[in-house]
Amino acid sequence: TSGILVCEAGCILENLDSFLENEGFMMPLDLGAKGSCQIGGNVSTNAGGIRLLRYGSLHGNVLGLEVVLANGTVLDMLGTLRKDNTGYSLKHLFIGSEGSLGIITKVSILTPSRLSATNVAFLACEDYLNCQRLLLEAKRTLGEILSAFEFLDNHSMDMVSTHLEGVRNPLSSSLHNFYVLIETTGSNESSDKEKLDTFLMQSMEGGLISDGVVAQDINQASSFWRIREGIAEASMKAGAVYKYDLSFPVKMLYKIVEEIRQRLGNSAKVIGYGHLGDGNLHLNILTDSYDNNDILSKIEPFVYEWTSEHHGSISAEHGLGMMKADKIHYSKSAETVRLMVCLKNMMDPNGIMNPYKVLPSF
Amino acid sequence: TSGILVCEAGCILENLDSFLENEGFMMPLDLGAKGSCQIGGNVSTNAGGIRLLRYGSLHGNVLGLEVVLANGTVLDMLGTLRKDNTGYSLKHLFIGSEGSLGIITKVSILTPSRLSATNVAFLACEDYLNCQRLLLEAKRTLGEILSAFEFLDNHSMDMVSTHLEGVRNPLSSSLHNFYVLIETTGSNESSDKEKLDTFLMQSMEGGLISDGVVAQDINQASSFWRIREGIAEASMKAGAVYKYDLSFPVKMLYKIVEEIRQRLGNSAKVIGYGHLGDGNLHLNILTDSYDNNDILSKIEPFVYEWTSEHHGSISAEHGLGMMKADKIHYSKSAETVRLMVCLKNMMDPNGIMNPYKVLPSF
Repeated sequence: TSGILVCEAGCILENLDSFLENEGFMMPLDLGAKGSCQIGGNVSTNAGGIRLLRYGSLHGNVLGLEVVLANGTVLDMLGTLRKDNTGYSLKHLFIGSEGSLGIITKVSILTPSRLSATNVAFLACEDYLNCQRLLLEAKRTLGEILSAFEFLDNHSMDMVSTHLEGVRNPLSSSLHNFYVLIETTGSNESSDKEKLDTFLMQSMEGGLISDGVVAQDINQASSFWRIREGIAEASMKAGAVYKYDLSFPVKMLYKIVEEIRQRLGNSAKVIGYGHLGDGNLHLNILTDSYDNNDILSKIEPFVYEWTSEHHGSISAEHGLGMMKADKIHYSKSAETVRLMVCLKNMMDPNGIMNPYKVLPSF
Repeated sequence: TSGILVCEAGCILENLDSFLENEGFMMPLDLGAKGSCQIGGNVSTNAGGIRLLRYGSLHGNVLGLEVVLANGTVLDMLGTLRKDNTGYSLKHLFIGSEGSLGIITKVSILTPSRLSATNVAFLACEDYLNCQRLLLEAKRTLGEILSAFEFLDNHSMDMVSTHLEGVRNPLSSSLHNFYVLIETTGSNESSDKEKLDTFLMQSMEGGLISDGVVAQDINQASSFWRIREGIAEASMKAGAVYKYDLSFPVKMLYKIVEEIRQRLGNSAKVIGYGHLGDGNLHLNILTDSYDNNDILSKIEPFVYEWTSEHHGSISAEHGLGMMKADKIHYSKSAETVRLMVCLKNMMDPNGIMNPYKVLPSF
């Protein structure tokens, strides 16, 4: 009844959420991989996902951790308090550091009340500017009940409809350039519905959306989510995929997709989708095979340089791992990286914690 | 329109909030000291306040910082991205470390949409158990519109009515043992009011509250807030005050007040109030003068030992500063404090950043 969950790091996210459902609460994060991912891994990688827009990041929701350090010390920071200003906030060092400073063994996390009323709408926008205006309008009009604002371009939609069985565009015409999935979650069915209707009416009249449909039942809502969540799977089926997980100020988020599309011409299919409400773009580039060095050289380092110039992040929610460790400077200043290296050397002088990850080797 | 504010550390909290009001946004934190406190100080001390229940802590809301380190390096971490998983989350080291690791010079912060509908209710509960049950019910029924859940005991109420001019108990009878102030904030006046009415009806029928009144206008709402926010001021007027800022699991939060009251008998007035929704208790002990060593020896170390035994925090939102630096072990394990000291030595080897604060001297 406290709304605070304490568990072992190996618990599966979906199992935790089911457990909480019986108590009237929910996990503050939700990912496509929920059926297999573990909460310890979620915290180590600072996983984002679709509920971040509403409930914020794990830095806000994780109340405590138990961590094992490189020298074998067990660090007990497993508090269950919402407020505790006694000393430095060490737990945050382990959130998102991908196991390179210590191994998370237990987690204490704040869980919001599970609200009963959920609505899902699938909308079409003519251009990216309208997607942005729609986001602003959704934040204003739907306010506290907005729980997801996802977008995909028509290239993503084509790919999903082609490669995933049983998935079809719920909006009859295929002339739209962008699609937006909006979810609301609240405590009162009828007043939420009323708010959503007002929002949709205004958006239609204002020309922000050109078409749209509200899910009539849970099956239809799932079929809308299936489109958005199926893009990664469909990409894999479509051939070789170069994937980028970027974040930008919302205003320029789609520009990189257009730039890359122009650069590559007919040699690749470029799709853009993601968590627009969080400024998080997933950019997938689809080709016939991974052996095409010509294409890769056209993408990298261009995509990183462009992101850096526009103050974006080269890894919004997936982390740096091994592949991007030496690319950290595109998103972080030299001084900042230097302090990270000092920290790493202090806490793990022998480099035994998840080596070769996160930081460049010198 | 992005909902992200970037400003200098010296900006006054209230001025920032007024600036945002014109843009349709608000600061995610609110304190009694808003008219004079600066955002840099708020972030350095990880200030809590009354909006934490709804919008979470600064660890979740601060998107970026510019910090000057002890060696003069300017650390540019002033990102404006909601998601950025590139390397360690260094900014969190400076949130709540009270300037002892570096000086914050600029802040980038996420600001929620300003919602138009606010309601305030002032309620009476017979006992602390009913306060707890009411909190649970408020989280369930009011859900996403709940924006404050504050409580005070009848001793606090007596003191405010006695020492502050123009402040009176809005509930006629003075037989109640506890008072709760509930605020809702949402995007739709009529549906919020409906939710609040349902909640109050159910709470009355269920015996959770014994009396209550909903503010009919903004003046009445202010007068309810004045009671809660005036307690600190009234305490100062009442005489010598020993103040403690503690947090506990909600279940046992009021027990310490009763224990201390019993220990001190007639020699002092003991009052308890605070942010119940966050498990944050303000415990004030009022006596005639500060020279009474007998009273202090009955309070300390008892209050710290009791807090430690019950897994509470000896400083929920006010920080350790100089007075409580050597008491950190009541809330943090020896291993955790040791790592904090290593960090401090690494980042500030000459001890020039806000010396004698936060950590015990060895």
